[in-house]
Amino acid sequence: MDIAIIGLGLIGGSLARTARLRTDCRVFGCDRDGETLRLARELGAIDAELNDEKLRGCQIVLICLYPGEIVNWLGEYADRIAPDALVIDCGGVKRTVMEGAAEIAQGRRWHFIGGHPMAGREYSGFRYARDDLFDNASMILTPMPKEELPVLQRARDFFMDLGFRRVQFTTPPIHDELVAYTSQLAHIVSSAYVKDPLAPRHKGFSSESFADMTRVARLNEDMWTELLMLNRDNILPRLESYTERLNAYRDALRDGDAEKLHALLAEGRRLKESLEEA
Amino acid sequence: MDIAIIGLGLIGGSLARTARLRTDCRVFGCDRDGETLRLARELGAIDAELNDEKLRGCQIVLICLYPGEIVNWLGEYADRIAPDALVIDCGGVKRTVMEGAAEIAQGRRWHFIGGHPMAGREYSGFRYARDDLFDNASMILTPMPKEELPVLQRARDFFMDLGFRRVQFTTPPIHDELVAYTSQLAHIVSSAYVKDPLAPRHKGFSSESFADMTRVARLNEDMWTELLMLNRDNILPRLESYTERLNAYRDALRDGDAEKLHALLAEGRRLKESLEEA
Repeated sequence: MDIAIIGLGLIGGSLARTARLRTDCRVFGCDRDGETLRLARELGAIDAELNDEKLRGCQIVLICLYPGEIVNWLGEYADRIAPDALVIDCGGVKRTVMEGAAEIAQGRRWHFIGGHPMAGREYSGFRYARDDLFDNASMILTPMPKEELPVLQRARDFFMDLGFRRVQFTTPPIHDELVAYTSQLAHIVSSAYVKDPLAPRHKGFSSESFADMTRVARLNEDMWTELLMLNRDNILPRLESYTERLNAYRDALRDGDAEKLHALLAEGRRLKESLEEA
Repeated sequence: MDIAIIGLGLIGGSLARTARLRTDCRVFGCDRDGETLRLARELGAIDAELNDEKLRGCQIVLICLYPGEIVNWLGEYADRIAPDALVIDCGGVKRTVMEGAAEIAQGRRWHFIGGHPMAGREYSGFRYARDDLFDNASMILTPMPKEELPVLQRARDFFMDLGFRRVQFTTPPIHDELVAYTSQLAHIVSSAYVKDPLAPRHKGFSSESFADMTRVARLNEDMWTELLMLNRDNILPRLESYTERLNAYRDALRDGDAEKLHALLAEGRRLKESLEEA
């Protein structure tokens, strides 16, 4: 089977390397950056550069571009994609992408499925791509309504073969609502956390909890601005309720109310434990 | 050399196991919980139970109790500690402990040094103690003013022999100020983060950033209430300025101001990078 990968950044590059390592597929890739393409070829992450002829032979097309570019690419190449091909994007928001893709897919025979691999690193670009990035990750898929079951099965099998721990089917609104909390809010929290004036003095005075808390502050601000802006209706209520919860700890500390503070900490501990048991 | 370890919880138990593994010291320990003591003996984490006679022969005494109990123990056992012994506590706040200890140490020949191993796990108790818990950790030491240099050297050598990555000398006020940000605020942030009503639905929709963000919500609320209350004058300004920084992201999202959001994210990314380079 032949695969096309559009965009060889951290995610596209990692998908390419993983597919080459763990499947018999031929992998064709493209990237607007010539140096990235050269590196991907030399490292063996792709079999060859993607072109229109090769695209017509690919049964799976993975679009690994910034959210704003996904629908543009699809519009431009819609007529060069094989009938029956699975076309899956890897963007971190799903409602806007699915709306744009649904319009283009109309009357065409290939199948578009929204996708979001729940994995990443605090570095971006092909040079950080890994062939085991997805080993413990969930692949979220948001198919079109009434997509055929065999198509969903093909998609599921492909990502399980790559080594994902699970494939999670859902709708675009549910994806965007949950990811606003599990991932996007975490990036805002981390970014805000690292900006304390004491941060430059942390060495010798910090441990794992500081490292964890600030890890994803090292983000790609171009991509994350796009993601956060496209999902701000979901992020705002999460951020606001988080800040309100923080204020309860502040009040307990300010009032010297140890009993209240103890109850707040105990509630958080119990919730965390219940997540792990679930 | 003989070592006494008072309290065999996660930290005391890990110090005992590490000292037994990596030094030639004999390790004597005590714990108010009989079952913990029995386990520690059976696992070989201690050579024997500590008693008054053995305490008189120990050159190093590590007090690994909750903050509120440290000075009480010292007051009770002050006359049974060997002259020239190093007495070091492992509590997470240092000003209150040092004040209490200074009074008791007055006119006595042993040396009290405040200590704080910057390591932990999201589990507490002896059963989670490890002999490599401190391998990448900093040991913070807050000696009395004008402590003799050879005493500081002895303390430093002991912790380096245990495998700590570094020993950081400082004053109690500086310790308490910095740790309020690097560790205590992180625990509050994590505890508040996990309480979103969407949290129970995270499975399949979350990745490393969610795990990192919520890891230390699983804390021991008895100990952490003590720590946070004893250091609330330092924590409050950190928590308040953190919340203010969060509000800047909220404003940018609410106003749909992509340029502002991009600048905020870029600033956080640059700061995180500068911490790693430092």
